[in-house]
Amino acid sequence: RSMATTARKSLTIGLIPADGIGREVIPAAKQAILALGSDLPKTEFVELLAGFEYFKRTGSALPEETVEILKYDCDCALFGAVSSPSKKVVGYSSPIVALRKELDLYANIRPVISVAPTSDEKPSVDLVVVRENTECLYIKQEELTVGPNGKEARATRLITERASRRIGQIAFEIASKRPRKHLTVIHKSNVLSVTDGLFRETVRAVPLLPEVNGRYNDVTVMEQLVDSAVYRLFREPQIFDVMVAPNLYGDIISDAAAALVGSLGLVPSINAGDDFVMGEPVHGSAPDIAGQSIANPLASIRSAALMLRHLGYNKGADRLDVAVDQVIREGQVLTPDLGGRSKTEEVVEAVLKKI
Amino acid sequence: RSMATTARKSLTIGLIPADGIGREVIPAAKQAILALGSDLPKTEFVELLAGFEYFKRTGSALPEETVEILKYDCDCALFGAVSSPSKKVVGYSSPIVALRKELDLYANIRPVISVAPTSDEKPSVDLVVVRENTECLYIKQEELTVGPNGKEARATRLITERASRRIGQIAFEIASKRPRKHLTVIHKSNVLSVTDGLFRETVRAVPLLPEVNGRYNDVTVMEQLVDSAVYRLFREPQIFDVMVAPNLYGDIISDAAAALVGSLGLVPSINAGDDFVMGEPVHGSAPDIAGQSIANPLASIRSAALMLRHLGYNKGADRLDVAVDQVIREGQVLTPDLGGRSKTEEVVEAVLKKI
Ligand SMILES: CC(C)[C@H](C(=O)O)[C@@H](O)C(=O)O
Ligand SMILES: CC(C)[C@H](C(=O)O)[C@@H](O)C(=O)O
Repeated sequence: RSMATTARKSLTIGLIPADGIGREVIPAAKQAILALGSDLPKTEFVELLAGFEYFKRTGSALPEETVEILKYDCDCALFGAVSSPSKKVVGYSSPIVALRKELDLYANIRPVISVAPTSDEKPSVDLVVVRENTECLYIKQEELTVGPNGKEARATRLITERASRRIGQIAFEIASKRPRKHLTVIHKSNVLSVTDGLFRETVRAVPLLPEVNGRYNDVTVMEQLVDSAVYRLFREPQIFDVMVAPNLYGDIISDAAAALVGSLGLVPSINAGDDFVMGEPVHGSAPDIAGQSIANPLASIRSAALMLRHLGYNKGADRLDVAVDQVIREGQVLTPDLGGRSKTEEVVEAVLKKI
Repeated sequence: RSMATTARKSLTIGLIPADGIGREVIPAAKQAILALGSDLPKTEFVELLAGFEYFKRTGSALPEETVEILKYDCDCALFGAVSSPSKKVVGYSSPIVALRKELDLYANIRPVISVAPTSDEKPSVDLVVVRENTECLYIKQEELTVGPNGKEARATRLITERASRRIGQIAFEIASKRPRKHLTVIHKSNVLSVTDGLFRETVRAVPLLPEVNGRYNDVTVMEQLVDSAVYRLFREPQIFDVMVAPNLYGDIISDAAAALVGSLGLVPSINAGDDFVMGEPVHGSAPDIAGQSIANPLASIRSAALMLRHLGYNKGADRLDVAVDQVIREGQVLTPDLGGRSKTEEVVEAVLKKI
């Protein structure tokens, strides 16, 4: 899946901090990338605008220019987080959902790994959520009508064979390269027999595609209804290896999995398509702690590592991951979400020292 | 919310064990109810058919007769669990979803309470999930088309003002009677601004309805996006008191909450409408352990208690709840899901002795 990298003479990375702690953790990831020096080609950063704050100033949450620069000038990007309006705001639409669609970043890949089992006695977790990133209820086709009993709102949930197949391919590919080679298909086909039925059948049929050529024969496949998947994630997370899910279930399941490893502040993701990749910490904009310099930068640094690995820069990615792991294991310099007392900048310094 | 009970001279309870361990736990609940003797009026039970096994024999998962008898002859009912087909089965449709709709059981009420903190160090949990039970994606309006890129499936998600208001009323009513008087509205309006926007606004407006008359002024209201709700349920369940959610989120959240209290085998629910109530353990049909006499009967007995309380038989309900609590606290006679080695029947005996 890695995009060919050998020919790349320079690397242009778009940075979209957006809202809240996004503005604290994206600069942290930038510093970590800069520390990789000659493990990367000449690297340039482009700061790009988006977000709810930007919307409040300008009436647009995602300026056309941001999309254009990402498409035409950048090799990859890092996205921070967006705030959600606390009331309905006319004309506002989430820029992260729009970006995933505009850049056709159809796979949201979220590895959740417990490093350094702490005083927490939770079973150790090592799984990857592979979330379909372009359809399901996220197509945002909604309408409001007024009937005899008041307002009625309808949303369309779209599941296509094409999108289910391509996310299934990514999921099988990832599973086939992991030691346990196990894939769980998440759905709710006991209620949604047509939409989730199509997702489930299409994903299950991936190993039979001619181009697969038997490559996935040793991947074992299990299914789990989304409600029991969440239940079992809490009770026995070790049964999961790779989980593939339609968009909304994937959103919920990755947060559930994140809860198992101590903090959302640790969980990275990439939004990947055939020609572009965008790293994004799984956490939100955390308005309650924004501006206090206590946001955990580790999810963003790990997202940078995932992004670089996807582009083929494995050495740089490894250096970031190892540094983050060491800082967590040592447990001396951690932000409050992990029970520490350090500031964002101190954690970044600690990581930079290990790189 | 209790339905008037004083005039009732006899009580007719429909029993729908359906599939798998439903057939073991519903008879258990029946025994517990019978043990209440004179705390209930003369009680009769009617055994009714439904389920996937029944579908395989007859081509129908919910015979017309079952619905008719429930509607015209029963005061209330207990439902066991349904199995889900492991492949797409033409003509099959979940009987529990159909029953909720046919009987207009619009509120699915699921109290999740940790009794007897065991060796598990999880924080103690005491919350109620109030799940809208008739719409959202559960209306099962789905269609399949074939486009240039293959199959495309669409489902409609319906959220109405009417259903959101009545579930909001139930949720506020329950919250106003609890010590903490706190309500969390679960939605995903950062993506689904129209449908979840309507749900959120309508629920938030309940305290302003003229008939409420200030009764909910001391209920505090919080909101939580469904993904972070699941995350926070794992991390700090004690922040939740009553949670109100559209159908699918409610399904997922109640399983997540159940994971916090040791076993799905403990969590009861009622499906309640204006004229009927049906108890239902939150667990599924558990085909892996069905027929082994090790199913946990406590969720079913608790569901019977909830059902009786809803009908106004508080004394009988209390006796069932106290007996179940004692058996759990003593920890001597428990099924394997709770770390014990007892059989279903032994747990039932232990409960009967305490009643
Ligand atoms: C902010 C929101 C639109 C987004 C989503 O639901 O995809 C977030 O929860 C995530 O998981 O990246
Ligand atoms: C069996 C299934 C249709 C049902 C649901 O999704 O409502 C179950 O999960 C539940 O929670 O009662």
